[in-house]
Amino acid sequence: MTISFAGHGLDRADNLRPDAVAQAELRARPDARVLVLDGLSPLLDDANRLSWAGLDSLPEGAETVFLGLDAGAPVFAVVPLAGDDRPAYLQRPNWVAIAVLSPADLALYSGARSLVDWHARHRFCARCGSATAIAKGGWQRDCPACGAQHFPRTDPVAIMLVEHDGALLLGRGTQFPPRSYSALAGFIEPGETIEQGVAREVLEEVRVAVHSVSYLGNQAWPFPSQLMIACHARADARDLVIDYSELDDARWFTRAEVAEAMARGKDARAFIPPPRHAIAWHMLKWWLENEA
Amino acid sequence: MTISFAGHGLDRADNLRPDAVAQAELRARPDARVLVLDGLSPLLDDANRLSWAGLDSLPEGAETVFLGLDAGAPVFAVVPLAGDDRPAYLQRPNWVAIAVLSPADLALYSGARSLVDWHARHRFCARCGSATAIAKGGWQRDCPACGAQHFPRTDPVAIMLVEHDGALLLGRGTQFPPRSYSALAGFIEPGETIEQGVAREVLEEVRVAVHSVSYLGNQAWPFPSQLMIACHARADARDLVIDYSELDDARWFTRAEVAEAMARGKDARAFIPPPRHAIAWHMLKWWLENEA
Repeated sequence: MTISFAGHGLDRADNLRPDAVAQAELRARPDARVLVLDGLSPLLDDANRLSWAGLDSLPEGAETVFLGLDAGAPVFAVVPLAGDDRPAYLQRPNWVAIAVLSPADLALYSGARSLVDWHARHRFCARCGSATAIAKGGWQRDCPACGAQHFPRTDPVAIMLVEHDGALLLGRGTQFPPRSYSALAGFIEPGETIEQGVAREVLEEVRVAVHSVSYLGNQAWPFPSQLMIACHARADARDLVIDYSELDDARWFTRAEVAEAMARGKDARAFIPPPRHAIAWHMLKWWLENEA
Repeated sequence: MTISFAGHGLDRADNLRPDAVAQAELRARPDARVLVLDGLSPLLDDANRLSWAGLDSLPEGAETVFLGLDAGAPVFAVVPLAGDDRPAYLQRPNWVAIAVLSPADLALYSGARSLVDWHARHRFCARCGSATAIAKGGWQRDCPACGAQHFPRTDPVAIMLVEHDGALLLGRGTQFPPRSYSALAGFIEPGETIEQGVAREVLEEVRVAVHSVSYLGNQAWPFPSQLMIACHARADARDLVIDYSELDDARWFTRAEVAEAMARGKDARAFIPPPRHAIAWHMLKWWLENEA
């Protein structure tokens, strides 16, 4: 395969980030605009599109990040007072909004949300504890005390379809909505390859050994700032020993059950599949369309 | 393809991380051992293997991280006084050492180095500025003041072979050793897919538009904590506009030039290729072995 996701079509114009004069000029332009957020949730207009305002709407001293140029017009977002690193399904306003956004708006919102949330949760220097200052158009924070530079995080996460003899292993996180199942997933740790991360997570969560890990595709996911890396892996046996500190349940599903769930969505008998804007949905769709 | 790298064979035993009693018991075991580092550089024995010591060699109050179990024996590393986030080629002791380590020792050192370096550079809470405490066997830091939890970073980096009509685009970073060329690379930003990151980086660095990005493989790289994601991409034209703030040079090389460089290494006429333990070397090898 590959699973691919649309980008937002902005020119990130990163060459303009380090130039403080250029940044001030961009902010002063009459066509400059800022993404309107309610905390970290998007505010949608009547056509379910992202909302925008002029930069004169901003309070004095607001920290802005430069997202890029949209057909030449400078586009910004504002750092909120507080961040929020909870998973998406615990943030209903976001969960509802991201389901109706166009792919391009979702990509734009995702990048903006990850960036401003990172600033809100990283106002101090991790090296020395001093207050830091936003820099490079919002793509860096600098420490005036010790000189450390800090960069926004993007955390790689492995998400995997584990297959055995035509059946698929899916699980429920401890805070998933009722009857929902999805692909197992976990953060890739320092010193680990993607394949090693896949094998370790599956072993930790359900004590199943996997092999033949292959790459399927990737997606940016903004709760708070993940790079979801989709993989397929094979297991040699089906015995599960579930780690209930991480999972509420895990089960093997037949191809017919997965097909029924994907076809009927929230009304399915087998289980409720992941939402369409999550890479897990695309992984299940790919699996149904491809022979074992 | 895939390019694959050996793991270190440790059981990360992450279920033992949150248990403070288990951690104390592991540290007290007679077969427990700690990786000996000189700052952040490995100390090699006569057989070019990593060096180890007993935990009784540690100074009082040393921060340790639990790396896992090696054939049942608990293995630790110590957080040094200072971290070092410079690129590998500016750290000669590391550069020399990692070239001679076995793949398993390199993987073990890489994970340990990334983790202890992260601790050394993240002793304070980025949310509130207070001093944080090591937690979960060294896989987390907790803030006693605001309750924030902080996790070690793994930063995804796209590294790419750009091809046009049988020729390959390679570049020199501004601090590369003389005559050395390698694949272009750059951090994947929040809100970006791997494919978008590849296209943006190539456009930024040399103003070449690319398409048909495909995934090749990945590698953990510990300077300071990257997940290198190798890709192949195609360009439609060869005109280069080099961003000299990022690159010293970039050039198209013929297949014969790449073959000569890979065959002769440091003595090559065309250019000096990347070292064998870097994924870039494996990417060039893959490219030579595969038809366009």
